[in-house]
Amino acid sequence: MITIYGDSISGNCLKVKWTADHLGVAYRWLETGVLTGETRTAEFLAINPAGQVPTVVLADGRPLAQSNAIILHLAEGSPLIPADAYERARMLEWMFWEQYSHEPYVAVARFQVRYLEKPVEDLDPRIVERGVQALQRLEDGLAASSFLVGERLSLADVALVAYTRVAGEGGFDLAAFPRVQAWIARVEVALGIG
Amino acid sequence: MITIYGDSISGNCLKVKWTADHLGVAYRWLETGVLTGETRTAEFLAINPAGQVPTVVLADGRPLAQSNAIILHLAEGSPLIPADAYERARMLEWMFWEQYSHEPYVAVARFQVRYLEKPVEDLDPRIVERGVQALQRLEDGLAASSFLVGERLSLADVALVAYTRVAGEGGFDLAAFPRVQAWIARVEVALGIG
Repeated sequence: MITIYGDSISGNCLKVKWTADHLGVAYRWLETGVLTGETRTAEFLAINPAGQVPTVVLADGRPLAQSNAIILHLAEGSPLIPADAYERARMLEWMFWEQYSHEPYVAVARFQVRYLEKPVEDLDPRIVERGVQALQRLEDGLAASSFLVGERLSLADVALVAYTRVAGEGGFDLAAFPRVQAWIARVEVALGIG
Repeated sequence: MITIYGDSISGNCLKVKWTADHLGVAYRWLETGVLTGETRTAEFLAINPAGQVPTVVLADGRPLAQSNAIILHLAEGSPLIPADAYERARMLEWMFWEQYSHEPYVAVARFQVRYLEKPVEDLDPRIVERGVQALQRLEDGLAASSFLVGERLSLADVALVAYTRVAGEGGFDLAAFPRVQAWIARVEVALGIG
């Protein structure tokens, strides 16, 4: 059985939980708090020197980190990864974009407002602006299809929904992005969450 | 033949060029300057709405963006992607880590110093600190093997070497990271660059 070191308030960690649940992968969840310093203990750093959750320890004892790398590993050979090479590449495009152009703004704003209790009006304007741009990019990306890559759920949806569904907690107004709202509901149903 | 829209000063774009060259993939390179606004024209935004290079247009006319997604697509089935599932996952772990924890610091510092002519001492201390942490993480990651994933070149090396080899241009002192320096030389030989 695999062990998931994760913090339940982290969308990156929930991606791993949802993927495992969806695929019926058995796991043990070890709650590892970022705010309580549990990712900075010597014990945890021995497993992941980067000190980040989620980190997974596979059945054979080998560790794996980075949420998107973990879900790609868990989902190999499953319908969550498109069989078509171009669709697979587009899925990866969304997943790398998520880590570079979405998470650092949408997730960071939400973390500061919800967990550090920073007033929305005190957020770095650059974070807010780029967060809105990321949500608009999603809105545009959903113009032609029900999911981010075609008409079925893929890891692109799992990766992007994690922080998009809680963007409101960071002060973002999802009412301005109706296709995104409908897509969140669709992904939540497909994953059995929400 | 594929078309690569790229800016030669961008490590992200060079990753695509090096991968194509290494694998013998024929391509047309269209120089697309970030500093000259060529990624913000209506023509380019029609190809990549995110307005980012590199962007590739495949032989059948379909676009693909995000440097690491592009090189994963170009290298499918090649020795640049490990055949072993765990090694493949570790490669992806490094590639996602690169975009989240390395590029935003090492590449951004280098861009500001070299291309925006910002004095090193005026860099945001957080960028410098995290850049040093990223280089140390690489140094530690190279303690047990010649390349980032075992004893042969993979896309993890291609992705990480791009900005690490020019980190000095951002004020980072690579002499403090001897394993990283030796690895850069090794990767440059393997890729026939340098």
